[in-house]
Amino acid sequence: MAPKDYDSSLPPVPSFDFDPGSSPNDNASSDSDTDSTCPFCHISSVFPPYDPADPPPSSSPLLNPERTSPQPATFIILSTPHLVAFLDIMPLSIGHVLLCPRPHRPKLTDVSPAESAELGRYLRILSAAVVRATGVGDWNVVQNNGAAAAQVVPHMHFHVIPRPELRDQRSERFTATMFGRGQRDELDEDEAAELAERVRRTVAEVVRADGEEVAKL
Amino acid sequence: MAPKDYDSSLPPVPSFDFDPGSSPNDNASSDSDTDSTCPFCHISSVFPPYDPADPPPSSSPLLNPERTSPQPATFIILSTPHLVAFLDIMPLSIGHVLLCPRPHRPKLTDVSPAESAELGRYLRILSAAVVRATGVGDWNVVQNNGAAAAQVVPHMHFHVIPRPELRDQRSERFTATMFGRGQRDELDEDEAAELAERVRRTVAEVVRADGEEVAKL
Repeated sequence: MAPKDYDSSLPPVPSFDFDPGSSPNDNASSDSDTDSTCPFCHISSVFPPYDPADPPPSSSPLLNPERTSPQPATFIILSTPHLVAFLDIMPLSIGHVLLCPRPHRPKLTDVSPAESAELGRYLRILSAAVVRATGVGDWNVVQNNGAAAAQVVPHMHFHVIPRPELRDQRSERFTATMFGRGQRDELDEDEAAELAERVRRTVAEVVRADGEEVAKL
Repeated sequence: MAPKDYDSSLPPVPSFDFDPGSSPNDNASSDSDTDSTCPFCHISSVFPPYDPADPPPSSSPLLNPERTSPQPATFIILSTPHLVAFLDIMPLSIGHVLLCPRPHRPKLTDVSPAESAELGRYLRILSAAVVRATGVGDWNVVQNNGAAAAQVVPHMHFHVIPRPELRDQRSERFTATMFGRGQRDELDEDEAAELAERVRRTVAEVVRADGEEVAKL
């Protein structure tokens, strides 16, 4: 009845420290990992990585929402060598963010094993950061694969969507719009800039706290 | 304009090999990680881990769906030292599975950094396995945190839900029931046993293919 012996140790948690010896483009995507028609590839290509534990100030050109011009302004909340996250331009609620791999990966099954682990790590970090930044403690994580599953942009992405307590009617609107029907509001750019700054700061807090936790082990 | 240098290497992909020197209970959850009223903790407690690359045969007592008796039968598709996955007992479609951490973690923000990476890794593996086992290439991943987000069992879990092309009516039923309203069908136990066996086999195929990919690097 006893299971076979099993290496039950979890892989080590990577350090968040910068390595001044490595180039920012190590492990970077090759051209074949980019789709020139994909809006999320465009976002990836114009926002270079920064240290999530020490984000640049809002005034930095590295975070300028107009870098994606003439496409809609993009409010970055995370930009690592492998992942980017930003505010959804048609949010279902305040703090609705998207997390995706930097290279073009149509579906979740197209990411590499290492990328999938990195997505999992940052999904928790972003969730904690969005909760702290919005003050809303309940939220949904949604990730759609393929047209039948209501995927619109064919570059895989997780939605993190805060769920303030809603009256039933708004709640029904939520479930109807989550899968691509109904109305969603457009992002107000001033509010978005302020919110993105707050989320970047809470991401940094969570990443630094995780680093201290690991250092204690 | 250039970002600071950044250690851009992804953490190494862990090996799936068994380590005969380690105990299956290394890193196991302490009692404080278990909630005696939680159905998913009950599932975790009665199904020991097995090697996902080499699952026991369906006839093995390790996989007996009645291990959760008198709670509903449970059709396990993955059982590692840190995670369990099983068929949803009220599936929205054939192949609807749940993935959760073995210890009691109410929300995604309650998992450890290492657990979050492991969840990310297996979310991709399970997605690939469910696609292969059902022949349905589109699917949703959903994870609800808190009552306002329609979380029912307060032990965090990802839903992986195949989305065969549906007529509009069934599609609307899907969006309405995803967040806890409306009717869902109960699992047929004979079909479930056959499906779980198929998914365990496709999980093993994906895990072994990943291992070969890593060995080639």
